[in-house]
Amino acid sequence: MSAASQAQRTAEQAGRDIEIVALERGPWTSYSACGIPYWVSGTVQDRDDLIARTPEQHRARGIDVRLYTEAVGIDLDRRTVTVQDVAGGTDGPVLEPVPFDQLVLATGAVPKRPPIPGMDATGVHGLQTLADGHQVIDWLEDEQPERAVIVGAGYIGLEMAEAMVLRGAQVTVLDQAPEPMTTLDSDLGAEVRKALEGLGIDVVTEVEVTEFESTDGTVSAVRTADGRYPADIVLLGLGVAPNTRIASEAGLPVGEFGGLRVDERMAVPGHPGIWAAGDCVEVHDRVSGERAHIPLGTHANRQGRVLGTNIAGGQATYPGMIRTAASKVCGLEIARTGLGESSAAEAGFDAFAVTTESTTTAGYYPGAESITIKVIADRSTGRLIGAQIVGGQDSAKRIDTLALAVWQEITVDELAMVDLSYAPPFSPTLDPVTIAARRTAERL
Amino acid sequence: MSAASQAQRTAEQAGRDIEIVALERGPWTSYSACGIPYWVSGTVQDRDDLIARTPEQHRARGIDVRLYTEAVGIDLDRRTVTVQDVAGGTDGPVLEPVPFDQLVLATGAVPKRPPIPGMDATGVHGLQTLADGHQVIDWLEDEQPERAVIVGAGYIGLEMAEAMVLRGAQVTVLDQAPEPMTTLDSDLGAEVRKALEGLGIDVVTEVEVTEFESTDGTVSAVRTADGRYPADIVLLGLGVAPNTRIASEAGLPVGEFGGLRVDERMAVPGHPGIWAAGDCVEVHDRVSGERAHIPLGTHANRQGRVLGTNIAGGQATYPGMIRTAASKVCGLEIARTGLGESSAAEAGFDAFAVTTESTTTAGYYPGAESITIKVIADRSTGRLIGAQIVGGQDSAKRIDTLALAVWQEITVDELAMVDLSYAPPFSPTLDPVTIAARRTAERL
Repeated sequence: MSAASQAQRTAEQAGRDIEIVALERGPWTSYSACGIPYWVSGTVQDRDDLIARTPEQHRARGIDVRLYTEAVGIDLDRRTVTVQDVAGGTDGPVLEPVPFDQLVLATGAVPKRPPIPGMDATGVHGLQTLADGHQVIDWLEDEQPERAVIVGAGYIGLEMAEAMVLRGAQVTVLDQAPEPMTTLDSDLGAEVRKALEGLGIDVVTEVEVTEFESTDGTVSAVRTADGRYPADIVLLGLGVAPNTRIASEAGLPVGEFGGLRVDERMAVPGHPGIWAAGDCVEVHDRVSGERAHIPLGTHANRQGRVLGTNIAGGQATYPGMIRTAASKVCGLEIARTGLGESSAAEAGFDAFAVTTESTTTAGYYPGAESITIKVIADRSTGRLIGAQIVGGQDSAKRIDTLALAVWQEITVDELAMVDLSYAPPFSPTLDPVTIAARRTAERL
Repeated sequence: MSAASQAQRTAEQAGRDIEIVALERGPWTSYSACGIPYWVSGTVQDRDDLIARTPEQHRARGIDVRLYTEAVGIDLDRRTVTVQDVAGGTDGPVLEPVPFDQLVLATGAVPKRPPIPGMDATGVHGLQTLADGHQVIDWLEDEQPERAVIVGAGYIGLEMAEAMVLRGAQVTVLDQAPEPMTTLDSDLGAEVRKALEGLGIDVVTEVEVTEFESTDGTVSAVRTADGRYPADIVLLGLGVAPNTRIASEAGLPVGEFGGLRVDERMAVPGHPGIWAAGDCVEVHDRVSGERAHIPLGTHANRQGRVLGTNIAGGQATYPGMIRTAASKVCGLEIARTGLGESSAAEAGFDAFAVTTESTTTAGYYPGAESITIKVIADRSTGRLIGAQIVGGQDSAKRIDTLALAVWQEITVDELAMVDLSYAPPFSPTLDPVTIAARRTAERL
């Protein structure tokens, strides 16, 4: 819908007319999927608060939004999309094909669901759509679960862990990896584990789920090779894969990470008039120089605007991304940007990492929290290539300064000299970012 | 003391011996002057919390710290400093001159005290040193003032205003300028005024203090041309001027803002072996290209390290600054970087400014606070040349991203595309910084 809105704006500014049809299989448009865990936790009271723009609001701006209308096929030669009415379920009638001059694929991603026995038991939930949120909230209210097991300790898994803690459940998080949050290096992941355990969350790593046990069709426990974790509710946070089924069936190019290939204008190469953006595409990682599938709302939003500008006759390019992300689990803040120590080595850098501990305010100011920053630099040039943060309140957003430094390819030495702000309520005399950069520069 | 510590480290690393004498007229070393308002307010309980390193700690690292020892003259030919023992007061004995090979001037700044009648009444306080802090705290405890008048609505003045609010006083702030915080453009200053008034602080601008009235030698009111403000305590926040008396008496070059001239190594040009850093020098403003006197601890600290490296035989340069600063008054956060709209025009830019309002978290997340960002760009190039922020909790530190963008001379268009972090507790999908940059780019 970012692309649609931007196309509308660009066309208007150019005094052009553009007819936009938006096909949506569900009942909602433009909502904050990232906000769902906060709604489930009760932190956000009203589902409608998550909705940025309703179908009616889009329609009022001239976009023909068709709800419960699923795109089930693309005919590239005839320039039509086959659509099905799914208001009454997936066996609804096929409708008149929708013709297009330009086609935008914004099909998003689908949750990964490895074939584990018992996965379909009631009480086992994903948490991707508002509909999932409703299901989980109903379950929480009806069943008052005391024991929650989260499978997957990534962003979504840990946000669900917070939600379950706030709902009063005893929470266990299971993951295959040695430490939670594999978007961080394992040393910082170990810091996250410590903090989660401090919140009373049971973190079990290097385990693979082998079965969901159920009683009368309702989940009762999660089994691993060595263990059994009783559960009144199970939440799956196993990541997502690009949703490219109809695109690949139509012969559009899919990359090695399963996402659609697009150029920097967000056009599908070799297929004039076909565009794609969001969680269904692979994009350029500016630091590694390689393509990657990083499904995040910030990327999708920027891509949508670039795409919308271009389809309406404007000129915009998407410069790529650097995997910047942030998350919060109760009082713990986590953030990252660029490459980690091991991925930097894989990308051909002579990676050099220094981890620094500091405080979020002047040490003497009440409420000073600990902040750990890991800086990854290229040893030969001193260039900053990544950073990771784990800390208390007011830690995570400092990643933005580091992200811009990574983006600009500056050295840790230069970064240490940049005139950042200071006042005792906001940082020590030298910001933790400056301290981290300086320590790294000193040890290079 | 930054310079002294760094010189010691650099010499050690090079395996050299260096003898460092530090002359200090007071009893303390290395304390957080910026923390004094928080000690006065009672937010920080213990004065010693503000002390980063005691004289004993410096001595343990081999620095010969001489307290109550004031440098009163410099003999550039004989290479000596004339010193006076001021332990018993300013009429103490002159001591044996202290010889030097290299001399570092770190004499700081002195509070401005315009010649206003009644200024010497008891109850009229500056707040620069720990000794000042003790005096104010004693006054607060002995006199329990109900009405505090602050003269000067800059950083220090407003931090004192917060301190007095927290001490339960009714606070009036007086300033000559049309709006408080003249380091901000007046439109953002007006936002600060609104917020201060919301905190119950009386803000009176465009007034000049003509007299401090007193009763039996104790201040009782502050008079302006048109008004009279009863006061049980008066705090002066009128800014500071470089303390260069002994340097200029010795013939060292002073610039147009009254600060010592230094090159990028922090050496005084034309005087080999003479160095200066901190609030007593003028430095390079990277955006305007001109020199300026901006007395801030962050600059002093960086300059001291550069200087310390150089006097011990290392190589370091100070790249200049961009006037980045932040402050907090109760729930209000204020920050700035680069040039303001009017100073940008003076510096020869075709200044173009856009002010954007957003929220510090996703709008639906509890505790979302309003944040106003003003972005100043050069119209012809789109280059970001300054930014100012006024907002609630978690607003101010976003200035660092904008500061790095100003430092790197990137355009608002580029900044809008940088991959900054997002999670609902930390920002809307697009960070306020991104939104501000994008809006500015759209309107350029």
